[in-house]
Amino acid sequence: MSFRATVLTLYPDMFPGPLGVSLAGRALAEGTWALDAVDIRDFATDRHRSVDDTPAGGGPGMVMRADVLARAIDAAPAATDHPRLLMSPRGKPLTQDDVKRYAGGSGVTILCGRFEGVDERVIEARGLTEVSIGDYVLSGGEIAAMVLLDAVVRLLPGVMGAADSAHEESFEDGLLEYPQYTRPAEWEGRSIPPVLLSGDHGKVARWRREQAEVLTRARRPDLIERASRSDGRSRD
Amino acid sequence: MSFRATVLTLYPDMFPGPLGVSLAGRALAEGTWALDAVDIRDFATDRHRSVDDTPAGGGPGMVMRADVLARAIDAAPAATDHPRLLMSPRGKPLTQDDVKRYAGGSGVTILCGRFEGVDERVIEARGLTEVSIGDYVLSGGEIAAMVLLDAVVRLLPGVMGAADSAHEESFEDGLLEYPQYTRPAEWEGRSIPPVLLSGDHGKVARWRREQAEVLTRARRPDLIERASRSDGRSRD
Repeated sequence: MSFRATVLTLYPDMFPGPLGVSLAGRALAEGTWALDAVDIRDFATDRHRSVDDTPAGGGPGMVMRADVLARAIDAAPAATDHPRLLMSPRGKPLTQDDVKRYAGGSGVTILCGRFEGVDERVIEARGLTEVSIGDYVLSGGEIAAMVLLDAVVRLLPGVMGAADSAHEESFEDGLLEYPQYTRPAEWEGRSIPPVLLSGDHGKVARWRREQAEVLTRARRPDLIERASRSDGRSRD
Repeated sequence: MSFRATVLTLYPDMFPGPLGVSLAGRALAEGTWALDAVDIRDFATDRHRSVDDTPAGGGPGMVMRADVLARAIDAAPAATDHPRLLMSPRGKPLTQDDVKRYAGGSGVTILCGRFEGVDERVIEARGLTEVSIGDYVLSGGEIAAMVLLDAVVRLLPGVMGAADSAHEESFEDGLLEYPQYTRPAEWEGRSIPPVLLSGDHGKVARWRREQAEVLTRARRPDLIERASRSDGRSRD
């Protein structure tokens, strides 16, 4: 059975968008995954089809209504056994481990927030998990949903070739990737590091590991701290 | 003068995509910003129009060629005085401060990576800044570029209303947003917290601040640590 993504949005026309092209697009065409973009506005009941209202307690902007969103969530196909996610800068930062977990399931339902946010009661009542793709503010959750789905779809069985899948393991060591080079051997006076042309696979592997460690320590010491903390936990 | 985004990609048809809709789309139509999606393949010189080759030193996948990418970068309009970014999981994690800095400039040039990465020499020779939108792996840099541009465009003058802009300040305190509520006052047996309906603006403000602090401490203690570290630095 294929992976099913249900996206609840005020902009269903944004989908599949970039997810209809390249790797994710081929997988979509081949039926490896399915995408339903549901228009939240279809679940409004007043004659203005309103989906939002002013914040209780005052303040700028508009808040998405609990009742309208709940109806959209309850009507979503296959919503019951899929994780229900709300893309939001308040959420848990998305990691590759989360992506793998979602890819191992049968689908996800994603609510895309807009305006000043979503009535807290629907988050509680429908058990939405808030997910953040990073510490910046977007105009809405739609592109964030595309990020999550692109990351998930490339891990679905058959989407990447076996060679790429093997490479995936090497990301699990918590290091940034080593520098890559390809032909031409000489370009603008810059050469490929000789070790990579040595044909000595052991030396190449050691050099890459060292480079990855140096790069990670320089740019992302937090990844190394995090990896050593979780090593500690797993030994408990 | 409007903000100019140049995106170098193997999938120019992905653009503007979701950036052509809603807030960013209106701003694009009104000329607040301009978007050039440049096909990297147009800068290939062999008859197969190849843009990639196998990694020096072996390994799975393909690496994007320095010579082809350099030609694409050098030909990019307005490339000289814009930050040159490479979307890559190896990069510095994007923050709202970075977004503000880019929005304050006249434009950005963004290279979208694909395959196993980009020949390191073009990163060095063309001074590319590697930017990561988060700790997960995408099939390419295109959706990551959309994330960055969506975040930047909403901060350009005139894109958001004055009310929303004011709210933006409140994000700068390094806290996650407090819970929001709107009508109906009672929904599925759940009420809006009475303080929000009290009409006492001081009490509402204090409650929201407390809620934001509680939420941030529970979900993102790292944000509070980071904020107190940078306070320390600014007092030096």
